[in-house]
Amino acid sequence: MTGGSNGAPYAGLITREQEPLNLESPFANLDDQITPDNLFYVRNHFPVPQIDIAEWRLTVSGAVARSVVLTYDELRALPSKTVMATLECAGNGRVYLVPKAKGTMWGQGAVSNAQWTGVPLSVLLEKAGINAGAVDVVLEGADRGEVDEPKSPGPIHFARSLPLEKAMKDEVIIAYAMNGEPLAPNHGYPVRAVVPGWYGMASVKWLARIIVTNTAFQGYWQTLEYVSWRREDGLPVLAPLGETQIKSQIARPAEYETVGAGSQYRVHGAAWSGESPVSRVELSCDGGDSWDPVALTDAPVPFAWCRWEYLWSVPQAPGRPSLLTRATDEAGNAQPDHRDPDRRNYMINHVVPVEIEIRWTPAGS
Amino acid sequence: MTGGSNGAPYAGLITREQEPLNLESPFANLDDQITPDNLFYVRNHFPVPQIDIAEWRLTVSGAVARSVVLTYDELRALPSKTVMATLECAGNGRVYLVPKAKGTMWGQGAVSNAQWTGVPLSVLLEKAGINAGAVDVVLEGADRGEVDEPKSPGPIHFARSLPLEKAMKDEVIIAYAMNGEPLAPNHGYPVRAVVPGWYGMASVKWLARIIVTNTAFQGYWQTLEYVSWRREDGLPVLAPLGETQIKSQIARPAEYETVGAGSQYRVHGAAWSGESPVSRVELSCDGGDSWDPVALTDAPVPFAWCRWEYLWSVPQAPGRPSLLTRATDEAGNAQPDHRDPDRRNYMINHVVPVEIEIRWTPAGS
Repeated sequence: MTGGSNGAPYAGLITREQEPLNLESPFANLDDQITPDNLFYVRNHFPVPQIDIAEWRLTVSGAVARSVVLTYDELRALPSKTVMATLECAGNGRVYLVPKAKGTMWGQGAVSNAQWTGVPLSVLLEKAGINAGAVDVVLEGADRGEVDEPKSPGPIHFARSLPLEKAMKDEVIIAYAMNGEPLAPNHGYPVRAVVPGWYGMASVKWLARIIVTNTAFQGYWQTLEYVSWRREDGLPVLAPLGETQIKSQIARPAEYETVGAGSQYRVHGAAWSGESPVSRVELSCDGGDSWDPVALTDAPVPFAWCRWEYLWSVPQAPGRPSLLTRATDEAGNAQPDHRDPDRRNYMINHVVPVEIEIRWTPAGS
Repeated sequence: MTGGSNGAPYAGLITREQEPLNLESPFANLDDQITPDNLFYVRNHFPVPQIDIAEWRLTVSGAVARSVVLTYDELRALPSKTVMATLECAGNGRVYLVPKAKGTMWGQGAVSNAQWTGVPLSVLLEKAGINAGAVDVVLEGADRGEVDEPKSPGPIHFARSLPLEKAMKDEVIIAYAMNGEPLAPNHGYPVRAVVPGWYGMASVKWLARIIVTNTAFQGYWQTLEYVSWRREDGLPVLAPLGETQIKSQIARPAEYETVGAGSQYRVHGAAWSGESPVSRVELSCDGGDSWDPVALTDAPVPFAWCRWEYLWSVPQAPGRPSLLTRATDEAGNAQPDHRDPDRRNYMINHVVPVEIEIRWTPAGS
């Protein structure tokens, strides 16, 4: 919060799409491990639904023993937990793809980290009693609209499914609070799913219906959007995205930042993975010729990013070097060096050079 | 320039397209009237051409008495002048258009202001001797590539024309310096046109050929891109863009910025027009219900933006008001309240609300 403007640099959300509203977090201004609510990225597919909390109900239905219907107060009275989780849009970094890809042109800021409080999804599913043979849990939001390719049969609701195995995991919650406060409308008020370790599209906002199914869900965002090419039995198939891929990003120096020749510069950033903690982050300040490990300044835990830093002795010679970073997690996942086109316009975690400029700083400046 | 990173907010260019490279200036961090070179927006259509300065020549040909061929040193030995000029991309503000428009998704930062030094175009044209009946002066860059709709006959060079009348104006220069330094490659090294008062597409970078023509130039960026619908003799025609339209932008508070309830806040920004100086800028801090004039803190001159400021007594009540600004110039041009769809994806100068948030600041914080 600021009481005025004095010409000092400003950190705030960046509009990437006006309608529906899509706002990027200013990743270059990474500070605390937790992203404050007014800097957390916003990814909307449709207008924010207006919810009357007195009328609102969350239902669990489908392949269950008994349907469950909960008011907001009833939901919040159930056992709850708090999970720190990084959410990353599956299109984060898309603006750096060559050739240009379809979709919202996210830079580095379609990723943020928060504390989420809510009821484990498993508690609700157990309350309803899952039928034998159930395979998928569909999460449907109150947000809706028409899509064009193929033209939808009128407005459809945003919906994504989780395989039952992931849906039952401890970490998956139906959240009503973010960083200790009720969810803001842009973040899913009154409740949203939070699916730690998976790309953001799984963490359905404005959650209204939970539907257990006996077959794999074939919705629009499950089969047409948020899918990548995969090889199964030697055949190319379009498979729904799931686990977040390991990634490290440099906050500062930021792209095209000018740094002083011969200075000491604190390079810093954050790294995260899917379901496994980050184990190692490396940095190259010479375009990839040499790599050094960096210090992790947060304890690596599953689901949340950890910040890292490195004190760089900037060369004496002016130039335009590229900085690169790459991470590895405890499960052995590492970032690829090159882009795999099978990923289409999603899962952008190959190592991307960040060009900066080294300039001579006159003495005394 | 910075010697290190301490978590403070950072101002730097923002990638809006990777290839060709298109970088936005961080307008929210507007400070001096002159934009430093490392914060000046970059608009490229093709890869930056690699120029060998020893081989490089600038030619003037076409409907002239004698062709002129100049080396870099010969050009710089000619009479020169320095002009302060704001360049704005004709697509600046496109990300705020509803419905979404085609093209690079610029926010507020495809506009910057610099001091340009070079040789008046009229000096070169007089040296060549313009034939009677000449109407257009085509400026062709060394940058080139293929375009798709319609498919070009192989790579074509970026080129735009000026009507002879504008080409002969004092302010139009062939610039070799920006803010006192040789042009950077991204800004047109070794020389570019600077056409003050016109949208940026007229200020052709990496200028290589000047061609005087007896008929109106019908190039790709003159007839297909950088054109808007106009009515001539009652008929809709696609006319090339020209003069920059009057516009005011708020730098701070920036979109979605949080300001303290009851605080005094210095709202500030900049306003510019085409060929006439700005005469009046107004601000509304209540969504357009009431408007106050603001103080211009730079002397209004033709071609350059002037900064403005206003000390705002922020209301005591939390809320999410919209701020709006609008300008008028000495020729009587004023910003429209609503978007004219005939402008297609260009000339975006209608009044756009900026949503901010007022929050209560606890005592002592």
